[in-house]
Amino acid sequence: MSTTIGFIGIGTMGQPIARNLLKAGYTVRVYNRDTQKTDALVAEGAQRGTHPADVVEPGGIVFSIVSNDTALESITLGKAGILERLGPDGIHVSMSTVSQALAKRLTEIHSQQHCMYVAAPVFGRPEAAAARKLWICLAGASAAKERVRPLLNTISQALFDFGEEPDCANVVKLCGNFLIGAAMEAMAEVLAVAEKNGIERQSIINMIGQTMFACPIYQNYGRMVAEKVYQQSDRPVGFQLKLALKDTNLLLDAAEQAAVPMPFADLTHNRLLNGVAKGRGNADWVAVTQSVNEDAGLD
Amino acid sequence: MSTTIGFIGIGTMGQPIARNLLKAGYTVRVYNRDTQKTDALVAEGAQRGTHPADVVEPGGIVFSIVSNDTALESITLGKAGILERLGPDGIHVSMSTVSQALAKRLTEIHSQQHCMYVAAPVFGRPEAAAARKLWICLAGASAAKERVRPLLNTISQALFDFGEEPDCANVVKLCGNFLIGAAMEAMAEVLAVAEKNGIERQSIINMIGQTMFACPIYQNYGRMVAEKVYQQSDRPVGFQLKLALKDTNLLLDAAEQAAVPMPFADLTHNRLLNGVAKGRGNADWVAVTQSVNEDAGLD
Amino acid sequence: MSTTIGFIGIGTMGQPIARNLLKAGYTVRVYNRDTQKTDALVAEGAQRGTHPADVVEPGGIVFSIVSNDTALESITLGKAGILERLGPDGIHVSMSTVSQALAKRLTEIHSQQHCMYVAAPVFGRPEAAAARKLWICLAGASAAKERVRPLLNTISQALFDFGEEPDCANVVKLCGNFLIGAAMEAMAEVLAVAEKNGIERQSIINMIGQTMFACPIYQNYGRMVAEKVYQQSDRPVGFQLKLALKDTNLLLDAAEQAAVPMPFADLTHNRLLNGVAKGRGNADWVAVTQSVNEDAGLD
Amino acid sequence: MSTTIGFIGIGTMGQPIARNLLKAGYTVRVYNRDTQKTDALVAEGAQRGTHPADVVEPGGIVFSIVSNDTALESITLGKAGILERLGPDGIHVSMSTVSQALAKRLTEIHSQQHCMYVAAPVFGRPEAAAARKLWICLAGASAAKERVRPLLNTISQALFDFGEEPDCANVVKLCGNFLIGAAMEAMAEVLAVAEKNGIERQSIINMIGQTMFACPIYQNYGRMVAEKVYQQSDRPVGFQLKLALKDTNLLLDAAEQAAVPMPFADLTHNRLLNGVAKGRGNADWVAVTQSVNEDAGLD
Repeated sequence: MSTTIGFIGIGTMGQPIARNLLKAGYTVRVYNRDTQKTDALVAEGAQRGTHPADVVEPGGIVFSIVSNDTALESITLGKAGILERLGPDGIHVSMSTVSQALAKRLTEIHSQQHCMYVAAPVFGRPEAAAARKLWICLAGASAAKERVRPLLNTISQALFDFGEEPDCANVVKLCGNFLIGAAMEAMAEVLAVAEKNGIERQSIINMIGQTMFACPIYQNYGRMVAEKVYQQSDRPVGFQLKLALKDTNLLLDAAEQAAVPMPFADLTHNRLLNGVAKGRGNADWVAVTQSVNEDAGLD
Repeated sequence: MSTTIGFIGIGTMGQPIARNLLKAGYTVRVYNRDTQKTDALVAEGAQRGTHPADVVEPGGIVFSIVSNDTALESITLGKAGILERLGPDGIHVSMSTVSQALAKRLTEIHSQQHCMYVAAPVFGRPEAAAARKLWICLAGASAAKERVRPLLNTISQALFDFGEEPDCANVVKLCGNFLIGAAMEAMAEVLAVAEKNGIERQSIINMIGQTMFACPIYQNYGRMVAEKVYQQSDRPVGFQLKLALKDTNLLLDAAEQAAVPMPFADLTHNRLLNGVAKGRGNADWVAVTQSVNEDAGLD
Repeated sequence: MSTTIGFIGIGTMGQPIARNLLKAGYTVRVYNRDTQKTDALVAEGAQRGTHPADVVEPGGIVFSIVSNDTALESITLGKAGILERLGPDGIHVSMSTVSQALAKRLTEIHSQQHCMYVAAPVFGRPEAAAARKLWICLAGASAAKERVRPLLNTISQALFDFGEEPDCANVVKLCGNFLIGAAMEAMAEVLAVAEKNGIERQSIINMIGQTMFACPIYQNYGRMVAEKVYQQSDRPVGFQLKLALKDTNLLLDAAEQAAVPMPFADLTHNRLLNGVAKGRGNADWVAVTQSVNEDAGLD
Repeated sequence: MSTTIGFIGIGTMGQPIARNLLKAGYTVRVYNRDTQKTDALVAEGAQRGTHPADVVEPGGIVFSIVSNDTALESITLGKAGILERLGPDGIHVSMSTVSQALAKRLTEIHSQQHCMYVAAPVFGRPEAAAARKLWICLAGASAAKERVRPLLNTISQALFDFGEEPDCANVVKLCGNFLIGAAMEAMAEVLAVAEKNGIERQSIINMIGQTMFACPIYQNYGRMVAEKVYQQSDRPVGFQLKLALKDTNLLLDAAEQAAVPMPFADLTHNRLLNGVAKGRGNADWVAVTQSVNEDAGLD
C-alpha cells in the first residue's frame, strides 16, 4: 500500500493506534509536541514531522488524537497547523474526546477550506488499542467516511455510524463515558449498603456480573469498585479522575445547549469534583467511588 | 420422589415456579388467597389447601411468594398460618421481595419455634420462571440451605449464596432492582440529549448493547427506553411502576438503617414517585423514564 | 383561675411551657416517665401523677409534648394512658413533633371516644418557650381550638391556624424544620465557595442578614454555619442532628403519601444521614453543614 | 459638583442609577448600544457619547452595567472601548453580573494599563434602583474604592466590602442570587405537600414570613410562589428565568474552579433548565417553581 497517513498525538492511545497503521503497511508520518514520544515509532519505520503541517499530505488523510480542546485547536488552527496544508479533498480524522462546540466549529472551518472533518472518538483502554479492539463512534460526510473506513477497520473491532454531523459522534462518546460513571456510582451505593450489612462486596458483583449485568463494565469496573482498588500496581492509571471530570463537564455543556436536565450526570460530576477537592485528581477514576464510602462512614 | 412441598402464593411468579416443582415429580400442595388462581395447578395434579397451614407438613418444606410485607406476615403469623404447623426442622423458603426488617423479624420468630426461615428472592420475569431461568439470591442457616438446594436448582438456572443471615438475600434483591432502575435513568438522560441533537435513540443502544454494556438489562430495557415503549401490547405489564416504587422505599429503609446515603437511589425514587403522581403507577416501570423526557421538553 | 390542666412530658420544652401555665394561675398536674424531672415544677406548686391518666380530668384539657411517635402512642393509648380517662368533651392538646400518620390515627381514635385531639406543634428553642415566645401551629375542631386558645396564648407569642384536620399542623411543623435545614445547606454551599476564594465567611452572612435575608434563621443559623460552631459551650445542644434526621424522615413520609417528590429534602436528608454515619448524631444539627465543607476538601 | 462621570449601559437598571447620579449634581456622559435608550437621560441633562470611549475621561471614573460577559468585554476591550481612553488613575466601576473569570481577567488588564477595575454588582430590582435602595457588593483596590464610595453611596442604601480582589464581589453576587433560588425551591416543595394535603398555600407563607423567615425574600417571593403568579400584569418581568439560568451557570463555573460541589445549586440549575426546555425562558424566574408542581402532578 502506498497511501501516506499523517498521525498527530503519539500518547498512550495514539502510539498503539499509529503502530497498527504502520503494521498494516501504510506509510505513516507522525508528529507529537514532545518529540521523544515518537522515537519508538520512528525506529519501527514511521517518518517524523517537526510541525503538525509536516505530516499532512495536501488532499490526504490525517489522524489526530490529543488530550483536550486546546490541543486540538492548536494542532489544527495554529501556526504550521493541519489546516495550512490539508486543502481540497483532505480529511481530518479527529479521534480526540473534545467538546461538541469545538467539533461544530472545526467542521465549519474545514468546510470553508474545502476539506473534511470526520469525528471518530474511541472507546477502549490502551491495551484494547494495541489489540485492535477499539470501538469507534464515527460521524461526518458520507464520502469522507467511505474513504477512511478501511483505515478505521484496521485499528478497531467495530465502527458505529452516527450520521453526517461530526459533533454527534463526540456527544455519543461523552454519553458513553457518563454511562460508565453512572454504573460505578450505582454499584458503589449498593456495595456500601452491603458492606454495612456484613455482605461481602465481591459476592454481589459476582452475581450481577454473571446475570443481569454480564458485561465488561459491571464485571471489570465492578471488581475494582468492590475491591476498592483504585490503582493497579502493574500498569499505569487507565483513566485519570480529573480527565473524567473534564469529560463530564463537556457532557453537561452539551446537555445545557440541548436544554436537557441530567440529574444523574450532575451527581457523578459532584463525586468527581469531590475527588479533585480531596486530592485524587490523578488517581484512576474508579477512585470516585471512595466518596460514596466516606459518605457512609466507611474507610 | 415422595417429598411433599407446600407452596403459598400462586400469582404470576408463583404459578410457573410451583408448576416446575410439580413437573419435577414433587407432591405439591398449594394455597392462594383467591382460590381460583390455583385451579390450573390442581388440574395438573397439585393438592389444594384452604388455609396456609393446610399445605404445611410438620418438619417439612413450604415455599411462599407473595406481594408484600403485609401478605407475608399474614400467611406466616396469622390465624391458620404457616407457623401454626411448621414446627421443629420445618423450613420456610421465602421468595417474596420484602423488607429487611420483616426478614429479620421472621428469622427470629421461626428460630424461637425451632424451625428455619430461608430467604430466596428471585430475579427474572414470569417467562424466566416458566423456563426455569430464574436467578435466586439465597441466605439462611447452612443446614436449611442444603436441604432446599435441590428444589431451588429445579426451578432456577443459578443460585447465589449470601450467607447465614436471611435478610441479606433480601437486601441484595432490593439492590439488584435499584441497579436496573439506575441503568434506565442513565440511559434515558443520554437518549434525551441524543434525541435533541438529532441522533437516533436506538443507535446508541445498539452500540452500547454490543460493546461495553452487552448484557440483558442494557439491551432489553435499553430498547424499551429508546423506543419509548412503556407497554407491550402482546403481554401483561412486566413490573408495575408502583411496585418498583415500593421496592425502592424498602431499599431506602435498609440504607437508612445502615446509615448509607444513596443519592442515586433517591433520584430513581423521585422519578417513580413522579410517575405515580402523574397517574402511571400501573404502567410498566420503564415508564419512569418518561419523566426524563418531559423534563427535557420532549414528548 | 380554677381550671386544672394536665401536662405530660416535662423535658427541655415541656418544663418551661408547663411553668408558664403554672405562673398564669392554672392548676397544673404533671406527669413524666422519669419522675425526677418533675421535681422542680412540683416545688413550684404543680401536682404530680404516677401515670398519664392521673393528670387527666374527665372532660378536661391535657397537654402532651413528648419525643416521638412511640412515646405519644404509649402515653395516649397505653395502660393508664390519657384515653382511659379523658372521655366526652375532653381535649388532648398534642404539641409533639410526630408523624402525619399518627396524628390522623389519634384524631380518629379520640373521635371514637367522643373527645378531641388538637395538634399544636411549636417552633422555638427552650429559651423561647421560657420567654413565652413560641410560635404555635394549630389545627383541630373549631370548638376545641376555641377552648384551648387562651391557654395557648399564655405560652406563645403567636398562633397560626391550619384548619380542622389536626395532622395538617404536623405537616406544617415538619415543613418548617425542613425550610431551616434547606437554608443551612444553601448557606453552607455558598460559604464553601467563598472560603475557597478567600472571602471571609462571616462577611457574607453579615450582608444577607442585613438585606434580603434579614430574619432570625439566616442571621442566627447563618452565624453558626459561618463560624463552624456546631456546639455552644455555654448551653445544651439546641436540636440534635439525629432528631432532625427523624423529622426529615417524617416529612418524606408525608411527601410520599401525597406523591410529592422533594429533591431538596432528599438532599438535606442525606446530609443528616451522613452526619449520623460519621458519628455526629448527638451534635447540634448545624453540624450537618460540616459535610458540605468536607465535600469541598475543607476542614 | 464638577466631576464628570461616564456611564455605559442604559437598560432597566442602568437608567435609574445614572439618573440618580445626574440628580445628585454630577455631570454624566452616557453610552448605550441602542442609542434611543439614552434619549430620556439626555433630555434630563446627560451628555451622549457615540462610542464607549467617548464617555470616558482619562484618569476619570466610568460606570458600566451591561447584560453579560460578552457585552462587558466588548465595551471594555473592543474598538473605541473604555480602555482606549481610561489611562493612568482611571477607575472602571463594573456593576454587571458577570463571571468570576472575566472579572479576574479585566482586573489584570486594567492593572497593566495602570488603571483600576472595581467590581460593584448590585442587589435590587429596578424600583429599588430608582429609590436608591440598592445593596452593593464592592471589591477592588482600597484607593479606588475610597474614590468611588461617595458616588456609590448616592445610588444605594448600603455598601458591603468584600476586599481587594474585584472578582470576589462577583462571586458574592452570584451566591446571593442562588440563595434566593434555593429559598424558592424549598418553599415550592413545601407548598406542594401542603396543597396536596388541603392546606392553603398562602397560610404557610403567612406564618413563616411573620416568624422564622420574616424577611423580604420569603415574604415577597413566597407570596408569588404561593399564588403561582409568575407574571404581574402591572409591571415588566423582574428577572427573566433564562437570565437566572445564565447566572446559575456562572456560579457553578466559579464552584468548579474552587472545587466545591454544590448539589443544591445543581438542582436549582436543573429546574431552570427545565423551565427553558418548557418554553418559560422569558417568564419571571419565579416560574421555575412550576416544575415542582408539575412533578407532584399539580397544575
